[in-house]
Amino acid sequence: MDFQHSARSLELQDRVRQFMRTHVEPVEELYYEQVKPEASRYKTPQILQDLKRLAREQGLWNLFLSGKHGQDLNNAGLTNLEYAPVKEIMGRILWAPEVFNCSAPDVGNMEVLANYGTKAQQERWLTPLLEGRIRSGFSMTEPQVASSDATNIQCAITRDGGDYVINGRKWFTSGAMNEDCEILIVMGKTAPDEPDRHRQQSMILVPRNTPGVRIVRDMLTYGYDDAPAGHPEIVYENVRVPAENMLLGEGRGFEIAQGRLGPGRIHHCMRLIGCAQHALELMCQRSVSRTAFGKPLAEQGSVREDIANSFCEIAQARLLTLQAADKMDREGNKAARDLIAAAKIVVPGMAARIIDRAIQIHGAAGVSQDTFLARAYVYARFIRIGDGPDQVHLAAVGKELIKRGGVMTG
Amino acid sequence: MDFQHSARSLELQDRVRQFMRTHVEPVEELYYEQVKPEASRYKTPQILQDLKRLAREQGLWNLFLSGKHGQDLNNAGLTNLEYAPVKEIMGRILWAPEVFNCSAPDVGNMEVLANYGTKAQQERWLTPLLEGRIRSGFSMTEPQVASSDATNIQCAITRDGGDYVINGRKWFTSGAMNEDCEILIVMGKTAPDEPDRHRQQSMILVPRNTPGVRIVRDMLTYGYDDAPAGHPEIVYENVRVPAENMLLGEGRGFEIAQGRLGPGRIHHCMRLIGCAQHALELMCQRSVSRTAFGKPLAEQGSVREDIANSFCEIAQARLLTLQAADKMDREGNKAARDLIAAAKIVVPGMAARIIDRAIQIHGAAGVSQDTFLARAYVYARFIRIGDGPDQVHLAAVGKELIKRGGVMTG
Amino acid sequence: MDFQHSARSLELQDRVRQFMRTHVEPVEELYYEQVKPEASRYKTPQILQDLKRLAREQGLWNLFLSGKHGQDLNNAGLTNLEYAPVKEIMGRILWAPEVFNCSAPDVGNMEVLANYGTKAQQERWLTPLLEGRIRSGFSMTEPQVASSDATNIQCAITRDGGDYVINGRKWFTSGAMNEDCEILIVMGKTAPDEPDRHRQQSMILVPRNTPGVRIVRDMLTYGYDDAPAGHPEIVYENVRVPAENMLLGEGRGFEIAQGRLGPGRIHHCMRLIGCAQHALELMCQRSVSRTAFGKPLAEQGSVREDIANSFCEIAQARLLTLQAADKMDREGNKAARDLIAAAKIVVPGMAARIIDRAIQIHGAAGVSQDTFLARAYVYARFIRIGDGPDQVHLAAVGKELIKRGGVMTG
Amino acid sequence: MDFQHSARSLELQDRVRQFMRTHVEPVEELYYEQVKPEASRYKTPQILQDLKRLAREQGLWNLFLSGKHGQDLNNAGLTNLEYAPVKEIMGRILWAPEVFNCSAPDVGNMEVLANYGTKAQQERWLTPLLEGRIRSGFSMTEPQVASSDATNIQCAITRDGGDYVINGRKWFTSGAMNEDCEILIVMGKTAPDEPDRHRQQSMILVPRNTPGVRIVRDMLTYGYDDAPAGHPEIVYENVRVPAENMLLGEGRGFEIAQGRLGPGRIHHCMRLIGCAQHALELMCQRSVSRTAFGKPLAEQGSVREDIANSFCEIAQARLLTLQAADKMDREGNKAARDLIAAAKIVVPGMAARIIDRAIQIHGAAGVSQDTFLARAYVYARFIRIGDGPDQVHLAAVGKELIKRGGVMTG
Repeated sequence: MDFQHSARSLELQDRVRQFMRTHVEPVEELYYEQVKPEASRYKTPQILQDLKRLAREQGLWNLFLSGKHGQDLNNAGLTNLEYAPVKEIMGRILWAPEVFNCSAPDVGNMEVLANYGTKAQQERWLTPLLEGRIRSGFSMTEPQVASSDATNIQCAITRDGGDYVINGRKWFTSGAMNEDCEILIVMGKTAPDEPDRHRQQSMILVPRNTPGVRIVRDMLTYGYDDAPAGHPEIVYENVRVPAENMLLGEGRGFEIAQGRLGPGRIHHCMRLIGCAQHALELMCQRSVSRTAFGKPLAEQGSVREDIANSFCEIAQARLLTLQAADKMDREGNKAARDLIAAAKIVVPGMAARIIDRAIQIHGAAGVSQDTFLARAYVYARFIRIGDGPDQVHLAAVGKELIKRGGVMTG
Repeated sequence: MDFQHSARSLELQDRVRQFMRTHVEPVEELYYEQVKPEASRYKTPQILQDLKRLAREQGLWNLFLSGKHGQDLNNAGLTNLEYAPVKEIMGRILWAPEVFNCSAPDVGNMEVLANYGTKAQQERWLTPLLEGRIRSGFSMTEPQVASSDATNIQCAITRDGGDYVINGRKWFTSGAMNEDCEILIVMGKTAPDEPDRHRQQSMILVPRNTPGVRIVRDMLTYGYDDAPAGHPEIVYENVRVPAENMLLGEGRGFEIAQGRLGPGRIHHCMRLIGCAQHALELMCQRSVSRTAFGKPLAEQGSVREDIANSFCEIAQARLLTLQAADKMDREGNKAARDLIAAAKIVVPGMAARIIDRAIQIHGAAGVSQDTFLARAYVYARFIRIGDGPDQVHLAAVGKELIKRGGVMTG
Repeated sequence: MDFQHSARSLELQDRVRQFMRTHVEPVEELYYEQVKPEASRYKTPQILQDLKRLAREQGLWNLFLSGKHGQDLNNAGLTNLEYAPVKEIMGRILWAPEVFNCSAPDVGNMEVLANYGTKAQQERWLTPLLEGRIRSGFSMTEPQVASSDATNIQCAITRDGGDYVINGRKWFTSGAMNEDCEILIVMGKTAPDEPDRHRQQSMILVPRNTPGVRIVRDMLTYGYDDAPAGHPEIVYENVRVPAENMLLGEGRGFEIAQGRLGPGRIHHCMRLIGCAQHALELMCQRSVSRTAFGKPLAEQGSVREDIANSFCEIAQARLLTLQAADKMDREGNKAARDLIAAAKIVVPGMAARIIDRAIQIHGAAGVSQDTFLARAYVYARFIRIGDGPDQVHLAAVGKELIKRGGVMTG
Repeated sequence: MDFQHSARSLELQDRVRQFMRTHVEPVEELYYEQVKPEASRYKTPQILQDLKRLAREQGLWNLFLSGKHGQDLNNAGLTNLEYAPVKEIMGRILWAPEVFNCSAPDVGNMEVLANYGTKAQQERWLTPLLEGRIRSGFSMTEPQVASSDATNIQCAITRDGGDYVINGRKWFTSGAMNEDCEILIVMGKTAPDEPDRHRQQSMILVPRNTPGVRIVRDMLTYGYDDAPAGHPEIVYENVRVPAENMLLGEGRGFEIAQGRLGPGRIHHCMRLIGCAQHALELMCQRSVSRTAFGKPLAEQGSVREDIANSFCEIAQARLLTLQAADKMDREGNKAARDLIAAAKIVVPGMAARIIDRAIQIHGAAGVSQDTFLARAYVYARFIRIGDGPDQVHLAAVGKELIKRGGVMTG
């Protein structure tokens, strides 16, 4: 047991930290200004394009990882455990991961293509995604059913000759509003009557410009539209794609989802730890810059307690996430399932709570557009629902623990 | 002691409830659609104008109250205790209080004018406000200081011959983006060197179209701009108004603020209880309409516990608010100060917590524009900062209690 | 609606408060000293006997109430709503309610006898209980089953000629260690195979000295044995009592339990509010008497916040309890069931939390025998389990609320 | 970074786990029975003496460690990081650490003697302590001042010729009731007027049988006397010891306390994690053995959530404690101060919360003498006060973090 990061990870942490300070932090606001106008709302802003080029030139690109395929993609060759603190640093600014081509849902989609795609699928979609030339969407959740139970999903994917025909309604299809989004991964049922509920579903590749793909509206989270990525409601009406767009094979959708969501959850945790850490630092800064009732906030007992408690909570959640990453590296995503779920239970709630404390210390500025706090809160809060609500993970972990008499192997 | 509402209150509760069901609930969304276009963003939407006319015709108008002046204005002649449950019903929809001319910041501003205004000030501004013809803004919080400690406020109000000249920067001036907003109440320092810090400040009436009043930008709370009311940042640059615009007299600003904020806080509490109750009802409805993992949410243990706990918390917070209102009626706002503070401490946090539970049960719909929940959360969360952050009220109540050995008279 | 207590209640509050200050508070410790010696552990201490006589002389006796029977017994003729604040005052010292013959389990047992007993049963047992000459025990919970679900209870009550024969094992039979305890009310099954699970059980009167009643050991709660009352484990082995000892009739046990537990729960709530209020006052006193790190605790931010939050929580829980009491008075115990459950959910947790804060402020003294805090914490904590654990009440209230769409009538 | 324990630690974990299962668990209750009789209350029970001999024979003895001296004492040569999981296993039963001569306050006292004692002091007291032949007490907290601020301590240690004379009143002198307790380490002021408040105090060795050492009474924690160790109130009245009993030198008491308390705190954390883990396992076992309302507790949603949340909290707190231990090993106790404080803030509260959930699931059994839960709760709760209350550590960590802008190096 050892709490020191590897030299490789430390070196990349330094380089990414430096890049963030030099290139990203100074333009945090500029990004939102470029996105603001109605006309260019869902266009990738120029500043992001510039930063992506720069990061790629510096080799800070595609640092995420997934098994052996990941090793090929990731010239740094990081393990999950090594990547986690790097991703935390990227996560400090909400839009920064894309600078390094490490943003959702593209990372998850690239992993799906790398792990489960055919050669042809990889050439057509994975290559441009890895190069950051196009973006992608992930279309799973449906408005009409409790999608927290994925077996409820109703979108129909029907074989018709050499094609599949897709009919359904999805929402919160993250990434799909962006002009550069060219490909959607859609989950739906190919065998709704299959007795094994976990074999009813499939995932299929749907180019966004396929006839019948109709973007109904962008969904808001609290008041945010998350432009330029967006997460729209989409109707799929007799959308026809060739049979070779099927991923892995009919009935394998649930299996792919499990494979995709594990790392995805832990990546969200890493980013959220970055958000929480950033919020803690803002709290500390604010506390020395403001005075009320005769002394700086920094000298007020309840402010100090909020700060100390926040530190304790971040430190613990970070270690849990690192332990989950380590287990993914050593024993695989499946064996790490319970630790991933534990991190997914803990981290978003922790981040939301700490950001909320930072908001309180910032007063009106905290809820406004003048800090990253309100947006970060909404991100953290959303992840308590996204990729499975807390309750689902709690029930799963609880059930498993009871089976094992309360003892979960490290 | 008696937990039955008066006949007068019950009758008005019925009428307002009926009005809400028949006229307001069916157009809840229409309101937001009419506000949506960029061009008419800060214009009072037609549906609201229609509903105001209707409510006024039915005598459901200006039901709020403040002392004897209030009695004259309020043809129903309600006490605070009688008004509270009526306001709760209005509060169930975020924009509904204005339908009854019972919305912030106008209610507070009308009370200020009624209680402290001269005859001339009342005729010029109070009368059109009471008739709902114009709207008003309240300009107190400043971006550059911890405004939670009102003695920090720096806006300068300087006597110059027969005028006052105002220089300062304010933000979150609620109501001031609206096209119908004609008058601002501005707080600032007329005597920055006065040894008694509570005599340094004054409140003054500033017509919004006075030269030098410059609206810099609308502030967001989370992603919302709260159109059509807004709460902009405003720069006052050599803004000149006649001396008779002074309210009550130089150095009385703090006194007016105290008089204004007490009832204002309790009115927010009443509305927020309405929001929380509405969220609880939505939770119950959702829980019977959605099924996950083989049974309706309604039959899942943690959902039932969330619902039961929410009921217990609302019931308690409501009683505390009613008790504060009762004390205001019997002993005056000053004597009720600690109970008002207690309600202000309890209710916004309670409402935010319960709305958040409802969001969780609604999944992605809960954070989106498809329910009132995300907006309501932001309102509740904001009030934990607005009108004095929790910490300020906790410190004041704690100090007072210690002085009294823990015994606060009913 | 009105938050002023009735004159009758106020007058009794004054008298009981005066009695407590003059006669009970000065001997709080003496009581425990008299109970301490092994030899006289379960003997009613002399000081308690003296105080009972005095309270009875002053008419501060049997102030509790239950419907019309209660009216006869209670010469003050208090309603539940009037009694609640009186009981809160008695509750400030853990052993004080017995001074006024208002202690558990005797109050509940007296109510059972008054409401459901035959003339003969009342003469034999109710009269001496009302006169405070004997004490009683209540024997329901069993060690071998989850007694939170009362249908699990297994004690057998079998008809045999003119007798009933009782076999079973009970524990936490409150009151049964006391030397003056002469009568036990025992719950068990007369019809274990009855299809209606709520008609299987009966309650029966068992004189403690009946052959076959064997006290196995006294149970501890945390480190306390609650002498001189105790709550032992008892084995009933072929215990034979005459058939006329049956209460109300075979199969009516569940009905009696419901009738008994409603008021019992609310009485515990009243006492616990007294404990919490007492703890709050001790917190305030301690905070001005101790200095750490250069200033009195009273000036430390987090201490003030703890105190203010405690006040807010007590105030709310008290109002909820009073509202439940009022509903019991106006509409009966059954109609008030959900409000009683709400108070039962809220109050013990609130009291435990506040007492725990007081313990923290008192440091080592707080956990020791030198304040009432540790004992009071244990009482509050126990009531989160006793008379139905939180979870059972939450589930019941949640289920009922869902059925009513979230709206519970006052 | 690596989350695998060293081979040396794993091997000792296995051996201690095996010893606990084979020798300690089966006699958990027997220990309390042997301690029960009034006459032998503070005598080391036979079973403990037997187990100590056995553990020593097996080399499971003195496994704790402190710097280089520790290395000598600890034939296993464990680091803090290696020792932590071993101590967790011992901590599962409250009285088990003494079996391995790893119990408080002896461990801390042995470390003080090893690190700061003279050769003569070590021969006289350390040797028999290491051999488990005698026991010791630690006498610091005083009833009359807020001892959370150690500069408040008032006990006087006055030089008089070749002696020191001690006058003062202490309480919660842990270990001092035990018949085998021969030596007390007493903290007091040798220089009450020294301007540097951290140089006023000294620590001195006082044989328990010195004239003038008067044990006033044993203190209770929630009804428990913690026999056979106890933590009495002691009056020191003109207690005279030779000057060579001074530890390290006059004015070094604060320094020793810091050196003693750091490892002491982390050892309590390790034990408490063992308690929490044990409680979690009991929760799981109970949940499958009890049925209520038609299904096992194990299938009830809120039980599963309690269990899952408990796992997440234990896992996080354990990692934080391990990280603190690792930093102690790598950079020393002083550099690890903030992480030790963080663990001290987190772990006792976590343990108390989880044990409390286990109590709730056990119902009446949970508060009784029939499980270890009630005692374990009291231990965890006490440590939220002992060795510095939460508030003191929160304030220190908060202050330090603010100074560092929220960034604490690993």
